[in-house]
Amino acid sequence: MLNTLFWIVPCCAVIALLFAWLFFRNMLKESEGDETMKRIASHVRRGAMAYLKQQYKVVAIVFLVICCLFAWMAYGPRLQNEWVWFAFLTGGIFSGLAGFIGMRTATYASARTANAARRSLNDGLKVAFRSGAVMGLVVVGLALLDISLWWLLLDHFVEEASASEKAIMITTTMLTFGMGASTQALFARVGGGIFTKAADVGADLVGKVEAGIPEDDPRNPATIADNVGDNVGDVAGMGADLYESYCGAVLATAALGAAAFRSTDVQFNAILAPMLIAAFGVILSLFGIFMVRTKEGASQQKLLRALDKGINASSVLIIGASFLVVHLLDLSYWICGSIIVGLLTGIVIGKATEYYTSHGYKPTRDIAKSAETGPATVVIKGIGTGMISTAIPVIAIVTGVTLAFLFASGFEFGNVSMGLYGVGIAAVGMLSTLGITLATDAYGPIADNAGGNAEMSKLGKEVRRRTDALDALGNTTAATGKGFAIGSAALTGLALIASYIEEIKIALVRVGTSTLEIGERTVNTVDATLTDFMQYYDVTLMNPKVLAGIFVGSMMSFVFCGLTMNAVGRAAQKMVQEVRRQFREIKGIMSGETEPDYARCVEISTKGAQGEMVFPSLLAIAVPVAIGLIFGVAGVVGLLAGGLGAGFVLAIFMANSGGAWDNAKKYVEEGNLGGKGSEAHKSTVIGDTVGDPFKDTSGPSLNILIKLMSMVAIVTAGVTCAHHLL
Amino acid sequence: MLNTLFWIVPCCAVIALLFAWLFFRNMLKESEGDETMKRIASHVRRGAMAYLKQQYKVVAIVFLVICCLFAWMAYGPRLQNEWVWFAFLTGGIFSGLAGFIGMRTATYASARTANAARRSLNDGLKVAFRSGAVMGLVVVGLALLDISLWWLLLDHFVEEASASEKAIMITTTMLTFGMGASTQALFARVGGGIFTKAADVGADLVGKVEAGIPEDDPRNPATIADNVGDNVGDVAGMGADLYESYCGAVLATAALGAAAFRSTDVQFNAILAPMLIAAFGVILSLFGIFMVRTKEGASQQKLLRALDKGINASSVLIIGASFLVVHLLDLSYWICGSIIVGLLTGIVIGKATEYYTSHGYKPTRDIAKSAETGPATVVIKGIGTGMISTAIPVIAIVTGVTLAFLFASGFEFGNVSMGLYGVGIAAVGMLSTLGITLATDAYGPIADNAGGNAEMSKLGKEVRRRTDALDALGNTTAATGKGFAIGSAALTGLALIASYIEEIKIALVRVGTSTLEIGERTVNTVDATLTDFMQYYDVTLMNPKVLAGIFVGSMMSFVFCGLTMNAVGRAAQKMVQEVRRQFREIKGIMSGETEPDYARCVEISTKGAQGEMVFPSLLAIAVPVAIGLIFGVAGVVGLLAGGLGAGFVLAIFMANSGGAWDNAKKYVEEGNLGGKGSEAHKSTVIGDTVGDPFKDTSGPSLNILIKLMSMVAIVTAGVTCAHHLL
Repeated sequence: MLNTLFWIVPCCAVIALLFAWLFFRNMLKESEGDETMKRIASHVRRGAMAYLKQQYKVVAIVFLVICCLFAWMAYGPRLQNEWVWFAFLTGGIFSGLAGFIGMRTATYASARTANAARRSLNDGLKVAFRSGAVMGLVVVGLALLDISLWWLLLDHFVEEASASEKAIMITTTMLTFGMGASTQALFARVGGGIFTKAADVGADLVGKVEAGIPEDDPRNPATIADNVGDNVGDVAGMGADLYESYCGAVLATAALGAAAFRSTDVQFNAILAPMLIAAFGVILSLFGIFMVRTKEGASQQKLLRALDKGINASSVLIIGASFLVVHLLDLSYWICGSIIVGLLTGIVIGKATEYYTSHGYKPTRDIAKSAETGPATVVIKGIGTGMISTAIPVIAIVTGVTLAFLFASGFEFGNVSMGLYGVGIAAVGMLSTLGITLATDAYGPIADNAGGNAEMSKLGKEVRRRTDALDALGNTTAATGKGFAIGSAALTGLALIASYIEEIKIALVRVGTSTLEIGERTVNTVDATLTDFMQYYDVTLMNPKVLAGIFVGSMMSFVFCGLTMNAVGRAAQKMVQEVRRQFREIKGIMSGETEPDYARCVEISTKGAQGEMVFPSLLAIAVPVAIGLIFGVAGVVGLLAGGLGAGFVLAIFMANSGGAWDNAKKYVEEGNLGGKGSEAHKSTVIGDTVGDPFKDTSGPSLNILIKLMSMVAIVTAGVTCAHHLL
Repeated sequence: MLNTLFWIVPCCAVIALLFAWLFFRNMLKESEGDETMKRIASHVRRGAMAYLKQQYKVVAIVFLVICCLFAWMAYGPRLQNEWVWFAFLTGGIFSGLAGFIGMRTATYASARTANAARRSLNDGLKVAFRSGAVMGLVVVGLALLDISLWWLLLDHFVEEASASEKAIMITTTMLTFGMGASTQALFARVGGGIFTKAADVGADLVGKVEAGIPEDDPRNPATIADNVGDNVGDVAGMGADLYESYCGAVLATAALGAAAFRSTDVQFNAILAPMLIAAFGVILSLFGIFMVRTKEGASQQKLLRALDKGINASSVLIIGASFLVVHLLDLSYWICGSIIVGLLTGIVIGKATEYYTSHGYKPTRDIAKSAETGPATVVIKGIGTGMISTAIPVIAIVTGVTLAFLFASGFEFGNVSMGLYGVGIAAVGMLSTLGITLATDAYGPIADNAGGNAEMSKLGKEVRRRTDALDALGNTTAATGKGFAIGSAALTGLALIASYIEEIKIALVRVGTSTLEIGERTVNTVDATLTDFMQYYDVTLMNPKVLAGIFVGSMMSFVFCGLTMNAVGRAAQKMVQEVRRQFREIKGIMSGETEPDYARCVEISTKGAQGEMVFPSLLAIAVPVAIGLIFGVAGVVGLLAGGLGAGFVLAIFMANSGGAWDNAKKYVEEGNLGGKGSEAHKSTVIGDTVGDPFKDTSGPSLNILIKLMSMVAIVTAGVTCAHHLL
């Protein structure tokens, strides 16, 4: 049943990994600079590795426990496919690996970027961007490799009556490996997010506000922890996160394709389509990455244009590639419409993010202006603006979902399976150029760290100016990247809800329910459509079980955010006390005679993050199971829909409020409204500090939460079918 | 078709109004104190009246426009019942009247309370509490009177084939008068909320933080505006709000009862049940109010116990009364189960509110403690705690809805109409003792204003201590009141969604759709059940129209909050600048030689509130119509469910964060963590300021938003049926 076109997928994966290795090797050839630079870089590297080791230990225990549970469920009461526990495990390992490699690269690259920036801005850009590209390529390469290997493996082992049923079985089994990736990603995002923000808040509050020294001043005891945090939160966390998004989108779409095109000639082609689009996206991303190359001495404007050109070129070409894929696979050309809709939705969300968070526009400047009346009005205005900023992304997603659905379903609302396949395809389209968008995202923290290194190594203002320029460059492109990440989470979330129903179908067959009584009709379980299942389980909005699920889903997003916010608050408080203690007890820190105890700060952040990340993450796993056991399938679907709706909006609100506060502060620091050191500056620093956990801990974790809850529901569908209270 | 039992309802309404008038007259007999006290009270009274006049002008224009639209829809394309425009108008007038009377009473009562507190704490309590009771009784009295009159009027004029159909027609028509009340309530809450918080933030920030004088110091130019704000926001706004909740719950339940018991002997009894429970609740509230009477010289503990005793007695007795009602009306005794569930849910939410917002417990103390590391950690911790605090209320509501549904439906999930009638009955049960719970709520601002008056009239510390004690007493009982208000909003919101479907049925008949094709079945429109409609419109969670609605509904809550937050921010900024200007330009304010220009501050708040309240309020009306015109019925139900889920959770988060910040500040002011004037105190003042619009503007407005969107959907059901794009 393997089509020759399939082999394009692993080939592209290998190409991506090859280039990643090439870029990595080239980066290592660069000099790391003088002894101070090397020493600082190794401080950060060691801190980051120590943290990651500790984190993987905790995560390993969680994975082991869950694996045993899954294995028991598969071999004991036979509530699960026997591949699930293994798929879960590999998903976790690959997701962790993607984060690990990205972070390892980043910690090697920062001093080298700073050193290259001593020569020229362009050299700095090249080192930082190519290092970011390592992560982008590793994520997409590992993901496609993993998907291909799984496909080959299951194709060999799964035995089923017909080829069509086999395809459905394989794709839904593969989906469960997404849960491993999601779980790993959630731990990485939450743990990394708590680490980085505790360090950041500590460094900001005592360093900037109380002691009056810059963030990256070597006299600030929390500064190394802050730099470590950028790596473990923004790099390792983001890598695991996007690995999960990417896999989730491809796998969910493949599963929906298998179900929607059941028993047709093009079933296998529909499964292959998302993989092929992703594979072509890898090549086009590489093409885009190579386009980011400017002549020596180019202005910053030109650099930005070069970066933009790379992303835009890949985006435009992917539209052409999607027509090719659809043509090769004999699918309807309307499906390309869904892909284009996906790309456009991502771009609209990205532009809206930029408008609401960049200090080139009115909203962020208004937040800065409200600093004239103190920190309280900065916070009120930031929250208000963040909440309002949810309007455009939601309208974009609603329009995108409706259009992607209509294009794929042949403009027929009743054609639910095909329509939702279109929604999945839109998500894949949005994420297809992840190789390059992630590169521009990941190079931000590298540039940030390079700046830190330059500051601490006293490389002079010119170098610092260049690294700052690199950082600023990253912020602009990162807005688009964020738009794609959050938009794809919403679309993938929808596709996963539909996949859940497909999984329920398989689970029902496994527990021996071969027919369903729907009203006065009797339907064979395997022949039942999505709409049949909706009626069978009465997943309508007048069923109190569905409403209960919606309430709990909305609440879960808030409680999860609250838990992570408070975790950052607690860890940051400890950090503040430690930094204050060091200033008080270690003589000579402020005069620069004595080196502060950096390691102690790293340790505090590590402990804080480890202790705090377990409960919210386990809650995200436990709640879908609990709702399933109490309210059954209808409750679970309600939970997922409620969580998706409220979670998506809350995630945008938190990310945008945080981003706007950050840039309002930068706006004041650029000399507006009194500039650095003014009362207005102090007020915006408080706003920025409040925004830190918003944008880097709670907000991004919500993206994963939405999908993890769906994944958990999918994996435990068998339990829900067999046992539920109401 | 009128049952003699019906006459109990208007009788109880008249009794309530009579006692309200009696309490008011007795209060007026009290002395208003010395000349200064009178002068200050008249300042506040005039400011409040000026504001309300201005507000009613704006609202009148809006009502006029909407009325014309409704009249056109009724007499032109015949998309509506011809009573709707008139019902809408009267709903608005009565709701406004309830707020107006409450506010008028409060402004007369504050100086009198301060004067009575000069004699004793107990006298102060009596004046303040009885004045609060005026508002409680006026709200329930007017509501029941209004409902009775409407019933009699429609019973006389409506002509329908059968008595059963007539009852359905009457109850659904009456429901539309809820939209008038909701619209009026939203304007009152939003306008009043913006007014009061702009004044409060201005008074706090410049007065407390910058000039270092107390909130109620006569030297603070914003202090009169602040006191006016308590009256227009907390009294007039709350009165209109709860009038709307009360009517909404009774009317929605009556409409559901008419539909659920269609063509049965007890149909009329099922309609009467919510009205009778409310009527008995009035009498029991009166009983409770009279129980709040202590001997001279009682301690504060005893006063609190007296207050609690009043509320508890009415709550327990209402359970007994509900058994009587059910017995008299020949309904199933299980319905009493729904009522008890409603009461318990309200109590659990109230207790949870108290736990998370009172500084007697850990969460609020932790927020205060985080002030040691500055304002940023106070804000982070407050937001985190508020988000976590949504868990218990949501679990309570989910459990409550499920149980109330099961009790009323005879433990049969398929029996949707009856089950939802039970949910409505639970809401009525929760609100039945509104007469007394609202009295304890409304007396809070009266005591607060009395304190302000005492401070400005320099009545001495002892009097101020007593008014503070009265205020604190109110805060404790207010937590329970808030629990009931928000819990009933969720339950009523659910009942209204069900009523929307009933309205759709009538609209379909009106546009000539006499049969529905559902799958392979053909059903007469008038005979179709709620479940039939769910299938006919495919209101399942896999329909992209429903999902679009859920996304937009979630977004609406956030955007609405954001708009009101920003409105407060803008108005407060203007206030801060004005207060700073007065301190700068008017010589002798700080030494007390010159009186500041209070009127200018009142004017600024008034203008700010009027200008800012229109857009968010109109948005709340326009969005349900727009979603209906684009996505049809399925989209509207999705919108309402998404708005209910996210809005409920967001409302609790905002109310609790705000409350906790307020009490964290009070905790520090009581001498903990450094006490007044310390850095920790300044940090908690910033937290409190952020919390002001959370708890008094955006949070409470969400309660109304949830219901107003449902009401708009109900009133425009005819348009949605006749015209929609997709």
